[in-house]
Amino acid sequence: MQTKEMIATHPDVRGNVNQALIDAIDAAYACAQTCTSCADACLAEEMVAQLRQCIRLNLDCADVCDAFATLGSRRTGSNEEVIRKLLDACITACRLCGQECQRHASSHEHCRVCAESCRRCEAACQSALRSM
Amino acid sequence: MQTKEMIATHPDVRGNVNQALIDAIDAAYACAQTCTSCADACLAEEMVAQLRQCIRLNLDCADVCDAFATLGSRRTGSNEEVIRKLLDACITACRLCGQECQRHASSHEHCRVCAESCRRCEAACQSALRSM
Amino acid sequence: MQTKEMIATHPDVRGNVNQALIDAIDAAYACAQTCTSCADACLAEEMVAQLRQCIRLNLDCADVCDAFATLGSRRTGSNEEVIRKLLDACITACRLCGQECQRHASSHEHCRVCAESCRRCEAACQSALRSM
Amino acid sequence: MQTKEMIATHPDVRGNVNQALIDAIDAAYACAQTCTSCADACLAEEMVAQLRQCIRLNLDCADVCDAFATLGSRRTGSNEEVIRKLLDACITACRLCGQECQRHASSHEHCRVCAESCRRCEAACQSALRSM
Repeated sequence: MQTKEMIATHPDVRGNVNQALIDAIDAAYACAQTCTSCADACLAEEMVAQLRQCIRLNLDCADVCDAFATLGSRRTGSNEEVIRKLLDACITACRLCGQECQRHASSHEHCRVCAESCRRCEAACQSALRSM
Repeated sequence: MQTKEMIATHPDVRGNVNQALIDAIDAAYACAQTCTSCADACLAEEMVAQLRQCIRLNLDCADVCDAFATLGSRRTGSNEEVIRKLLDACITACRLCGQECQRHASSHEHCRVCAESCRRCEAACQSALRSM
Repeated sequence: MQTKEMIATHPDVRGNVNQALIDAIDAAYACAQTCTSCADACLAEEMVAQLRQCIRLNLDCADVCDAFATLGSRRTGSNEEVIRKLLDACITACRLCGQECQRHASSHEHCRVCAESCRRCEAACQSALRSM
Repeated sequence: MQTKEMIATHPDVRGNVNQALIDAIDAAYACAQTCTSCADACLAEEMVAQLRQCIRLNLDCADVCDAFATLGSRRTGSNEEVIRKLLDACITACRLCGQECQRHASSHEHCRVCAESCRRCEAACQSALRSM
């Protein structure tokens, strides 16, 4: 990811980047990927019927992370109130999805890796929210 | 859109649909379309330099509406806290985008239609939020 | 949806709309919704283990329809080659998803409605492709 | 990104990953970010009126990369024909966007970095397509 390099060259930013926000964007792209993969891997497990809630939360978390990563990348004009609300939604989505994945972490390696990714994204979004 | 017909046949819903939420989903798909079109039409206007903030808010609003419309359509298990936060983000995104579009409504027909679409989606999301 | 009204007011279009493309955009938004709902309803069915392929194709079809609906809405400058390739991808995604949903149409009402929606979107995208 | 780690733990994959496809997924997430940033940075440039086509191609390329990255991450059941068509659309979107960005590379650092990212994603998607 070249998120920092790109945002630093925006004419209204000129190198003065908010590193916490960059970290949250990168964590959100990574979490969108892990949640997409985890939903898909859960769907292929023999015990899929016990993983319905995990799949649901994974799909929702992937969509919220994806939306935040895109909005968070924009710097033209301003839309801070919406970014703050989306960060808040992302923190909640990651917390709930990470908790559910953690419950299956000992049975499924994809849930273990995804739970970590959710926690990392949750923490990065909390730092970004504090920095704004 | 066959949103109501689809959600009514979900095995956990069985006809017992929340009409306010259905209306918000349909309004959000429509608003994602109008905001995508309005950003694109603003970009082609001679006075594009004065429409930067409008384009920014349109792009952001389209992304948030799209994320809510997708999440709001899911009924397996539950993820109400995230849907509520996303409805809240959608209400704010539509309010700010609708206000900005309204400022250009007399000069640009696409901004006038988009402002209406944003207000309709904002109202539908507020009703949906109260209904949950 | 106000797709036609919005695209007609684009400064480079000025009322001269391609109706077949408008119809394909509207069909794609509708199909993104039905596929999102059908994946979610299949996931909640008792026989979820037999619906894995249906869920997979539904999720993929929703993502492709969503991408086409957004790109197809833009008229600034031009990007016809990419729209044509995405229409082609959308036709294939809808054909395969519609066939799989049809196999479960007699057992699950959501699959029956979704199969129809996929066929409608497939036909609309074929007309749009011929019109370009 | 933990794309490889996640896909390797899918029950139908069990470590037998297609590295070319993984590389294409990672390149597509990165390219979705650079294109989103480049569209936004172009919009803020004084000479925005000369960057309309660049913004258009950036927005389209971001959407196509995002759709491919998501679909390419799924391994349950199969949907190879659609992935192949989406890879093809992604290659074209990246080629055209990369060429347009390259034209502005000497004036705008964001266009230079984005052109590189597009070329990298185009090459990665071509390798992935050959590998399938």
